[in-house]
Amino acid sequence: MKGTVLHGPGDIRFEDVPEPKIEADTDVVIRIAATCVCGSDLWPYRGLQSAKGPSRMGHEYCGFVEDVGSAVTSIKRGQFVVGSFATSDNTCPTCGIGYQSSCRQREFVSRAQSPYLRVSNADGTLVATRERPDASMIPGLLATSDVFGTGWYAADAAKVKPGATAVVVGDGAVGLLAVLSARQMGAERIIVMSRTPARQALARQFGATDIVVERGAEGIARILEMTGGLGADSVLECVGTGESMHQAMAVTRKGGHMSFVGVPHGVEIDGQALFNAHIHLEGGPAPVRRYLPDLIDLVLEQTVDPSPVFDLVLPLDRVAEGYKAMDERRAIKTLLMP
Amino acid sequence: MKGTVLHGPGDIRFEDVPEPKIEADTDVVIRIAATCVCGSDLWPYRGLQSAKGPSRMGHEYCGFVEDVGSAVTSIKRGQFVVGSFATSDNTCPTCGIGYQSSCRQREFVSRAQSPYLRVSNADGTLVATRERPDASMIPGLLATSDVFGTGWYAADAAKVKPGATAVVVGDGAVGLLAVLSARQMGAERIIVMSRTPARQALARQFGATDIVVERGAEGIARILEMTGGLGADSVLECVGTGESMHQAMAVTRKGGHMSFVGVPHGVEIDGQALFNAHIHLEGGPAPVRRYLPDLIDLVLEQTVDPSPVFDLVLPLDRVAEGYKAMDERRAIKTLLMP
Repeated sequence: MKGTVLHGPGDIRFEDVPEPKIEADTDVVIRIAATCVCGSDLWPYRGLQSAKGPSRMGHEYCGFVEDVGSAVTSIKRGQFVVGSFATSDNTCPTCGIGYQSSCRQREFVSRAQSPYLRVSNADGTLVATRERPDASMIPGLLATSDVFGTGWYAADAAKVKPGATAVVVGDGAVGLLAVLSARQMGAERIIVMSRTPARQALARQFGATDIVVERGAEGIARILEMTGGLGADSVLECVGTGESMHQAMAVTRKGGHMSFVGVPHGVEIDGQALFNAHIHLEGGPAPVRRYLPDLIDLVLEQTVDPSPVFDLVLPLDRVAEGYKAMDERRAIKTLLMP
Repeated sequence: MKGTVLHGPGDIRFEDVPEPKIEADTDVVIRIAATCVCGSDLWPYRGLQSAKGPSRMGHEYCGFVEDVGSAVTSIKRGQFVVGSFATSDNTCPTCGIGYQSSCRQREFVSRAQSPYLRVSNADGTLVATRERPDASMIPGLLATSDVFGTGWYAADAAKVKPGATAVVVGDGAVGLLAVLSARQMGAERIIVMSRTPARQALARQFGATDIVVERGAEGIARILEMTGGLGADSVLECVGTGESMHQAMAVTRKGGHMSFVGVPHGVEIDGQALFNAHIHLEGGPAPVRRYLPDLIDLVLEQTVDPSPVFDLVLPLDRVAEGYKAMDERRAIKTLLMP
């Protein structure tokens, strides 16, 4: 089969790769119904994160079970499944407290931008829907695999409560779905830092009440002004740069909660500044598996629709165009259909 | 009167200073019953924190109300009071969620190693006991003003739960009272990093179940080994150096809670390492005012006795000896009696 391979900065190829097959008896092979390009894929694409030689790409996926290892008990051939970008056994003490994305059996999925995908630890990683979903539901279900799950974690880790004020730093797909998640959790006011009209519109559609276009010190001052000088109860950092982390810390109220859900790149947090900020901080890889059953239900019941973050749809073999469009910020997120 | 003044590194003098008097109508002046030297006083004493000229010292205090500003309503002349090292109005939104030590009206107390002390925002800062306490209770009550309150915050911010495993990094007075606090909150196993026999003994007296003498990578490995490779549910960082912060992060389980309660000095936290650690982190100046009523009751009812951290008692005019003994680690904490 053909799959997506990054050969070097800006060099995405859809080329011959081995077809996956069951390797361990806890594996499953799925036929991908849809996959997509993640903001985090752009770090190596831009050469900002070193890769050792050509790398298979893609970690967001849903699809139909083709083959099932002999030790798998909960997943059956023919089912429609969604899985997390991080595999987990879902039985260890870490999974037991809902931190499946740090399971000691974790592997990061990395070959999902392909027609077929092997998933290890299938019982602990995949969630099957009760019925095979309508095709129209597939983009929304795909979103739960990472981008919506990560936005949800941003809101959950920042302890968004009914009636609260939330700030979302970042208007990428994760940031936008963090808005939707904060709204779903009952935030009354949701302030988004964004300077792109199309993204501002989508943020409002997802529930944002206020848009702040200023950045840096001006952005901080603007949000403090909007929150009576206090800062916000919950601040959701969805970028991962030093500047965005600093902004997020500076607009979290004393005793408030800040989350960060994108891998920080080159970020150093000053200990004394964090001490003076006097906040709660939680970040890390989103434990999507914890949320998957609920998020799948929210999508299938049409309570929420995260799929509008996919503003570019391409056949999988044109994946290179999908990366380019996101890199140039012409697309928020590219959906790929095999 | 005479009071304590730091003139430069290692140069503590007990010398003439102005007697405090009511300046604002929300002030109270108290006659100090007891005060003490804080681990944080050693930073400027050691020249590790710059001071602009001579500095009045001391921020831990309890005593008898001598004079009361005209706008003070809850504090009466003659009462015995304990206050936080940070003043607060206890009415603003920040105080309202229990973060009084970051109140916008906050002033850090800094003249407490003296016979008399003016306290601003008295209604929001001081807590009076129902009766004038027995002299034997005064060291324990003094401890609630900062060192016990800060140890309590370390345990509270690290979300110590009944049955949990807690690690305390640091065997100073705050670390030792963090042990007592974790025990009081029901931790089943309390591991303390300490290499000094006298401090180990006190840690055990306060409820520690295990002592780890190794430091750095060895200390981390030892604690991981003791916790089934997982790390601890709650880790209480009570030192404030880069090494101690790193150790604390490394022994917190995924999804666990870490607190840090001493001002970090020269600490940079790597964003990616924190992301990978996947923990909850809370730190800052302990909101002692939130805890004071309960901690005072715990002491007066003799449920706990934090006073053994005071292993050196001196008359106030010998304060310089008290600093020296702590600096040379001959004393854990010096109690000063005017």
